[in-house]
Amino acid sequence: MTQKQTLEMLDKIKNGELSPEEAVLKLRMEPFEDLGYVKLDHHRELRQGIAEVIYGAGKTPEQIVGIADAMVKRGQNLILITRIPPEACAALAVKFSFNYHEMARIGIIGEMPKPDGIGKIVVATGGTSDMPIAEEAALTAEALGNEVVRLYDVGVAGLNRLLSRLDVIMEAQVIVAIAGMEGALASVIGGLADCPVIAVPTSIGYGASFGGLSALLTMLNSCASGVSVVNIDNGFGGGYLASMINHQRIK
Amino acid sequence: MTQKQTLEMLDKIKNGELSPEEAVLKLRMEPFEDLGYVKLDHHRELRQGIAEVIYGAGKTPEQIVGIADAMVKRGQNLILITRIPPEACAALAVKFSFNYHEMARIGIIGEMPKPDGIGKIVVATGGTSDMPIAEEAALTAEALGNEVVRLYDVGVAGLNRLLSRLDVIMEAQVIVAIAGMEGALASVIGGLADCPVIAVPTSIGYGASFGGLSALLTMLNSCASGVSVVNIDNGFGGGYLASMINHQRIK
Amino acid sequence: MTQKQTLEMLDKIKNGELSPEEAVLKLRMEPFEDLGYVKLDHHRELRQGIAEVIYGAGKTPEQIVGIADAMVKRGQNLILITRIPPEACAALAVKFSFNYHEMARIGIIGEMPKPDGIGKIVVATGGTSDMPIAEEAALTAEALGNEVVRLYDVGVAGLNRLLSRLDVIMEAQVIVAIAGMEGALASVIGGLADCPVIAVPTSIGYGASFGGLSALLTMLNSCASGVSVVNIDNGFGGGYLASMINHQRIK
Amino acid sequence: MTQKQTLEMLDKIKNGELSPEEAVLKLRMEPFEDLGYVKLDHHRELRQGIAEVIYGAGKTPEQIVGIADAMVKRGQNLILITRIPPEACAALAVKFSFNYHEMARIGIIGEMPKPDGIGKIVVATGGTSDMPIAEEAALTAEALGNEVVRLYDVGVAGLNRLLSRLDVIMEAQVIVAIAGMEGALASVIGGLADCPVIAVPTSIGYGASFGGLSALLTMLNSCASGVSVVNIDNGFGGGYLASMINHQRIK
Amino acid sequence: MTQKQTLEMLDKIKNGELSPEEAVLKLRMEPFEDLGYVKLDHHRELRQGIAEVIYGAGKTPEQIVGIADAMVKRGQNLILITRIPPEACAALAVKFSFNYHEMARIGIIGEMPKPDGIGKIVVATGGTSDMPIAEEAALTAEALGNEVVRLYDVGVAGLNRLLSRLDVIMEAQVIVAIAGMEGALASVIGGLADCPVIAVPTSIGYGASFGGLSALLTMLNSCASGVSVVNIDNGFGGGYLASMINHQRIK
Amino acid sequence: MTQKQTLEMLDKIKNGELSPEEAVLKLRMEPFEDLGYVKLDHHRELRQGIAEVIYGAGKTPEQIVGIADAMVKRGQNLILITRIPPEACAALAVKFSFNYHEMARIGIIGEMPKPDGIGKIVVATGGTSDMPIAEEAALTAEALGNEVVRLYDVGVAGLNRLLSRLDVIMEAQVIVAIAGMEGALASVIGGLADCPVIAVPTSIGYGASFGGLSALLTMLNSCASGVSVVNIDNGFGGGYLASMINHQRIK
Amino acid sequence: MTQKQTLEMLDKIKNGELSPEEAVLKLRMEPFEDLGYVKLDHHRELRQGIAEVIYGAGKTPEQIVGIADAMVKRGQNLILITRIPPEACAALAVKFSFNYHEMARIGIIGEMPKPDGIGKIVVATGGTSDMPIAEEAALTAEALGNEVVRLYDVGVAGLNRLLSRLDVIMEAQVIVAIAGMEGALASVIGGLADCPVIAVPTSIGYGASFGGLSALLTMLNSCASGVSVVNIDNGFGGGYLASMINHQRIK
Amino acid sequence: MTQKQTLEMLDKIKNGELSPEEAVLKLRMEPFEDLGYVKLDHHRELRQGIAEVIYGAGKTPEQIVGIADAMVKRGQNLILITRIPPEACAALAVKFSFNYHEMARIGIIGEMPKPDGIGKIVVATGGTSDMPIAEEAALTAEALGNEVVRLYDVGVAGLNRLLSRLDVIMEAQVIVAIAGMEGALASVIGGLADCPVIAVPTSIGYGASFGGLSALLTMLNSCASGVSVVNIDNGFGGGYLASMINHQRIK
Repeated sequence: MTQKQTLEMLDKIKNGELSPEEAVLKLRMEPFEDLGYVKLDHHRELRQGIAEVIYGAGKTPEQIVGIADAMVKRGQNLILITRIPPEACAALAVKFSFNYHEMARIGIIGEMPKPDGIGKIVVATGGTSDMPIAEEAALTAEALGNEVVRLYDVGVAGLNRLLSRLDVIMEAQVIVAIAGMEGALASVIGGLADCPVIAVPTSIGYGASFGGLSALLTMLNSCASGVSVVNIDNGFGGGYLASMINHQRIK
Repeated sequence: MTQKQTLEMLDKIKNGELSPEEAVLKLRMEPFEDLGYVKLDHHRELRQGIAEVIYGAGKTPEQIVGIADAMVKRGQNLILITRIPPEACAALAVKFSFNYHEMARIGIIGEMPKPDGIGKIVVATGGTSDMPIAEEAALTAEALGNEVVRLYDVGVAGLNRLLSRLDVIMEAQVIVAIAGMEGALASVIGGLADCPVIAVPTSIGYGASFGGLSALLTMLNSCASGVSVVNIDNGFGGGYLASMINHQRIK
Repeated sequence: MTQKQTLEMLDKIKNGELSPEEAVLKLRMEPFEDLGYVKLDHHRELRQGIAEVIYGAGKTPEQIVGIADAMVKRGQNLILITRIPPEACAALAVKFSFNYHEMARIGIIGEMPKPDGIGKIVVATGGTSDMPIAEEAALTAEALGNEVVRLYDVGVAGLNRLLSRLDVIMEAQVIVAIAGMEGALASVIGGLADCPVIAVPTSIGYGASFGGLSALLTMLNSCASGVSVVNIDNGFGGGYLASMINHQRIK
Repeated sequence: MTQKQTLEMLDKIKNGELSPEEAVLKLRMEPFEDLGYVKLDHHRELRQGIAEVIYGAGKTPEQIVGIADAMVKRGQNLILITRIPPEACAALAVKFSFNYHEMARIGIIGEMPKPDGIGKIVVATGGTSDMPIAEEAALTAEALGNEVVRLYDVGVAGLNRLLSRLDVIMEAQVIVAIAGMEGALASVIGGLADCPVIAVPTSIGYGASFGGLSALLTMLNSCASGVSVVNIDNGFGGGYLASMINHQRIK
Repeated sequence: MTQKQTLEMLDKIKNGELSPEEAVLKLRMEPFEDLGYVKLDHHRELRQGIAEVIYGAGKTPEQIVGIADAMVKRGQNLILITRIPPEACAALAVKFSFNYHEMARIGIIGEMPKPDGIGKIVVATGGTSDMPIAEEAALTAEALGNEVVRLYDVGVAGLNRLLSRLDVIMEAQVIVAIAGMEGALASVIGGLADCPVIAVPTSIGYGASFGGLSALLTMLNSCASGVSVVNIDNGFGGGYLASMINHQRIK
Repeated sequence: MTQKQTLEMLDKIKNGELSPEEAVLKLRMEPFEDLGYVKLDHHRELRQGIAEVIYGAGKTPEQIVGIADAMVKRGQNLILITRIPPEACAALAVKFSFNYHEMARIGIIGEMPKPDGIGKIVVATGGTSDMPIAEEAALTAEALGNEVVRLYDVGVAGLNRLLSRLDVIMEAQVIVAIAGMEGALASVIGGLADCPVIAVPTSIGYGASFGGLSALLTMLNSCASGVSVVNIDNGFGGGYLASMINHQRIK
Repeated sequence: MTQKQTLEMLDKIKNGELSPEEAVLKLRMEPFEDLGYVKLDHHRELRQGIAEVIYGAGKTPEQIVGIADAMVKRGQNLILITRIPPEACAALAVKFSFNYHEMARIGIIGEMPKPDGIGKIVVATGGTSDMPIAEEAALTAEALGNEVVRLYDVGVAGLNRLLSRLDVIMEAQVIVAIAGMEGALASVIGGLADCPVIAVPTSIGYGASFGGLSALLTMLNSCASGVSVVNIDNGFGGGYLASMINHQRIK
Repeated sequence: MTQKQTLEMLDKIKNGELSPEEAVLKLRMEPFEDLGYVKLDHHRELRQGIAEVIYGAGKTPEQIVGIADAMVKRGQNLILITRIPPEACAALAVKFSFNYHEMARIGIIGEMPKPDGIGKIVVATGGTSDMPIAEEAALTAEALGNEVVRLYDVGVAGLNRLLSRLDVIMEAQVIVAIAGMEGALASVIGGLADCPVIAVPTSIGYGASFGGLSALLTMLNSCASGVSVVNIDNGFGGGYLASMINHQRIK
């Protein structure tokens, strides 16, 4: 309920169109929306009109279909299902216009939107093994209305691969830097670019990579400014935040 | 060297104005700047015309004065000195227009710029003990041309303190959420706001806070989207990245 | 052996009904119960007349049936089997009045008792993935004679879900707050409620959740007073302690 | 604002005694208290009429005197100042009826209340080195209206010291078990007692005690039911929670 | 001694300037194998005439049979095979007088020797889940010529179980205390007994037991004197060292 | 109370010399000593007639003098004070026959006893920096009646230093192997010797030695049999256990 | 592009044989090779003419065959495929002259080169379980043109096994010391040898070996000079670096 | 060889049945010191004729002077004293030709030798704060007869600083890459250079650098081949190993 709506409700009480008891019940049932600024289920939904997200891990095919169905009935045209269990795909394909991106473990109901961000989001990876996480980030960003440039396998051990694409780095509005093992990619890109860099450590590696801990610590200690970090293997989080930054507009 | 400058140089060779040997020497001396897009000392400098930064920790007063002097001579009007050793302040005050912010351990040469960002940056803390890190973030952001709203001591253990300022949270362009101990502030703000949240864990706490590790892990595991994390106690990094996001413009 | 029983035994010696040698043997076989205050197998049994517990993990179906059989023969009407191996259920169902709660991995022999606690126990979770641990806590508390209110999926990233049930939080006698990932739920509830909060970290999450370590540290560092923590995924422990607190009576 | 107060306010609007605009302003200024159940500064205040608490660490003598002064003026008769800097004591002693407990680093303004809990709280320690944390717990509990029995230096390496006081253990309403090094005291007491046991690990020890981590892990893994854990060295938290449990009454 | 010096010494012998006996003495003072007492494969063999050990983990049935065969041919009557792969048992049973102890994952070729130690070794466990490690320790000790008393499931959460067997504890020559989870058994036994206690942490537990780390730290921090620790789950090491101590004789 | 004493007490009841009520009181007042085998303060005292130990860390000079005085009055001739604060020495020297061993931080009241163990205890260190811990171990063992051979600075990086003293290693009854940094000394000695080896990791080192953690893990993973480990820097524990083993006699 | 090639290109511009525009394009496409010192894909390729390497883990048989095919077509005679999935071997054997080394998980296309290093590389292991990693190191070194001496199962717990091969140690040009568990082998060899020692910790072990962490820390803390460490289980890295050192020649 | 066998062999020499030369050969085949090549204190001494090293930490000025004196008397011309306590310098300057390098905490007695290595050693650092460790490495290498090129403050966050010195990197025989914080320098240099890279993590940084752990893990996980790692802050170890590699010659 906006301030305007609250005023209207109170006017109705004043005019006798609404009893005080009814108003209390209404306020009680929606403690925050009455105040006009809390978003319903904000943390799981994306901006209206673009995409909603279902976190598929641990959900049954029936649950996923059920949630998707409810969203579609609410008028949602684009639904992103992350970490989708492969066995849920058949049921979704029967019922919806559905695409399954195997590498990213993402299923998408509906059509991808036209990009409407400020600029381009670059998704870069250190190696080819980081690609599943990178695709999760890239598809998330695309579903949220961003143009995405993929820059895969540009790890710092072969610096020329990265430097030969410096133009792409320099033109990015936001960069999602994804790397496992030593995770140095984020620092190097952070030093080259002049835009925000979101670092996503991955669990790729063995031995002293300790399931992504090594890359995580490297990225947190980056001496390049403008670098921040999300959870290990959290491609979705990287893509989501990149989209937020790429849609910064005057409020 | 931009592409245009490279073309001009090659034209000079063609025209006999420059010998190939001189050109090789020039290319060799400036391997990257020839390509026209690598920033000189990017990681230590901020956007030209606004502010430059000196990381004061471990530097002698003489070194700091010397670096500042060189910067001023290059025409720099505003210099931020973070983690400044208190003993350097007298020497700086003699020579420059200098202000010392004790709590933030920041010294500033010159005048703060007018804010020119998209919107406001909110710097929020869980407790009063987190204020030194918060002031480091806030002053950094202000020196980079941002309007900053301070929201201190709004930790989650007394939720009404935070909720009573919901309007400030909702109007922010970027939020820097700073907390030690359990570090839950970032998640709660991330769930309430619809803008990017930069989480800064602090080393405030005792026992199982393990020097900020507890807050760091909490923030990395935030189930709210749009939250990313910088190093423990890295107020400067939080303020710098917030400014970057608040200055997103079409390239 | 209670003090009364000890007195009776000694009276029998005095009266010649029992020889001192028999008494010594009896005392030796039960060194503590003679003293009247040590509970036999206290750590595995619950209050007499309400429920006994079998920890099913690592036990064969035969062992579980055997133990349950012995308990029933001792007159026990209600037996709780936690972390029960699914393959033990058929054998138990044949022999006893048996119910299997799949999500909680709990099997129950006999009928649930009427609640006789001081007030209500609230079991709250951050997400739906925490429900198996929550059900373990809730069923344990119910088997021990408590009224339980379930408050699932009220994680801090969508604060309005929690706040819309504030009345439930405020009326609780004890709260079991169960969360994985960042584990901030316990702090937020601890700040809202004025009753003891038992925090149960779960191993839900990935990457830097490190198998529940992140939630555990968050909860230990809670800046809300009245919060204490049990082991990761220890739903039984949370429910058991909640019942103890909900049955506090003058001794 | 209770429901009743909300109804009254809405009635005033109906009756024309309050304009809708004034009501909106009022709701906006106090988003939660309107709902009638959020406590003002709950996390730092204790139950009205008994004691309020100031966390002294990191505060200047002036700040502490100032806060205490405000509390006294609000009518508070008993104020507990934990981790008080010794240099603040003189200023407090001049102005208030003040007692300083050096070992516990606690200062108390006003008189200790009469105990009004259900039963007795036992505060037990493994060694004499744990006594500062134990005194913090004991004085906190006493300031909150509890009768406290101190049982110090009863560590498990000399079991007879503990067993010779079994009567005290058996009669406790709540036990706060405080130990460093191997921290086994909580498990042993948890196995002997039939009341809630709050375990407080301490940082006492050297080498592989890793600042209290060893005791913390031991206590979390306790195989005795009814044991929960607070942060390392958190004597205040242990005493506060013990008091909560000892004051459980029908709501 | 350089080659030149050695040659000179040998020349002196040849010339009669040095007796062979003097040379032997001299060589004996020099570091190594001239002295003739380095044991072949000492670390994998046990005292001759009693038992030899094969560490079965990671070895094929063929390899195990081959090694056993060679040992038997060297005249060995008793061979202990620890962590034996079950599939190796058939082949061993065909060829040798062989017994397989499933719980301990130990296979034994030949007959157990008569005990010839100073006294009895007690092997105690906290719970029934620790029994595989305990049996590994017990069988190892028996194979090395010790009388072993098993005291299983005497964990500290039910202290009377342990105290009712105090006579066994008091009469032990060495105790192997085996426990997972909180691992407090070693401290409690260390406080009761006046003989060496070898603590074996096990990986039994979940959550914050971190694969045995919790029990390991507890045991290392034991405040009881006379307690030392071997690796997690190292039942063989515990039994072997116990036997060494139980066979201490004047050299 | 021995069985015999219990029988006598029960006979008195039978004979009417003792009322059942008095017997219950007696049993209740002395729950353990009735059983006749629990040692008073066992964990802090050493074998009667040889030495008692005071752990000096954290105690005031007055406390130490007071405890020592009480011990002497009880007839104790030899008192070991470990980790003694230097400022306590003057007061002790005035009152007792007192020697201070600075490197070991040990003070000794009375005369060292004649060795009466089975054989010799060897105390070996990897480097000279480990000597304070080694002297703590050696003096403890000597105070408990053992002949000690010191073998310092024989670390594995210069193997010939160790091998040149192989005769000492081979003749030891027990060895205390003390090392920081990589801690490999215990494994190497364990492979050479055929007696129990007690490994004491020290906190000597820097960087990845992590305060002794590296040496601790190395020693726990020793592939030599017969090696067990005590806490980091626990020289007293090593010496005490070595003495126990060196005094193994038929009970 | 070497400096000479750059000069030639610039000469062509001067002579009108190349337009400046074409030169710019060429420079842009190969930003580094223009400068003449960056190696194409250096980090994945070995020295030309000797061997190229494919990291097989996570690649499909088709991908591996495809990459190998391209390399062979480029004229490569020797290709090393590390961590090769067994299912890729058949397809490779059909198409190429191929050998599969099962223990090392290495496949080799082509013939091993003649050794051309300065001296011999010794690959030593603590136990037989370390052999897969050792073979990875040894075969890598052989494929890179080195003579390799294998010295397996010479762990420090049986020092004579190592000392009996001292001549091999003394004559080595480089040593790769491979060990799990306590990892002391590297320190002992480092103390005996006077050549560089590359330590490779392995994940062999259990309990407190923590997946190789124990061996890793031991090796990093080695007090022998000349020892450096690579990642846990990184046999390839050890063999590669050993070859580099064994081919040191004046540049 | 047993004592008896040794005696027999020596008897044969005496009787002329065996020549001294044959005996030497025989002894040489046997494991140890007969061979005459075990170095006295090898791990603390450097190659004869070049330099010897004293590890100064924890030694008194008197001890250092004493050791240096003995070395000089043995004919040593160049002595390196690492981590020298400043207070030892005056005493050394009085007695010897002595230079103190404050930043490196190194004192040197005698004159630096002429470089005689194969090529140049490059010592590179990420930041200026790493310089003390770098100087320790550089001076060590120089004292061991190497030409050293210093390349300081070339961290990856400002890649052009490093790339502008690519010629130095490409011409190095060995590189010591020293960095704290994220430690990415080693990987980047490892990818650019084709010589061995010794990575030295430093404890420079704060927060999640955890005393150098972050840089250590990064370096161990380097995906560039040819990189190995020494202990945190071990500049001496890096310089020593670099010299070894730079002096590789046919044995």
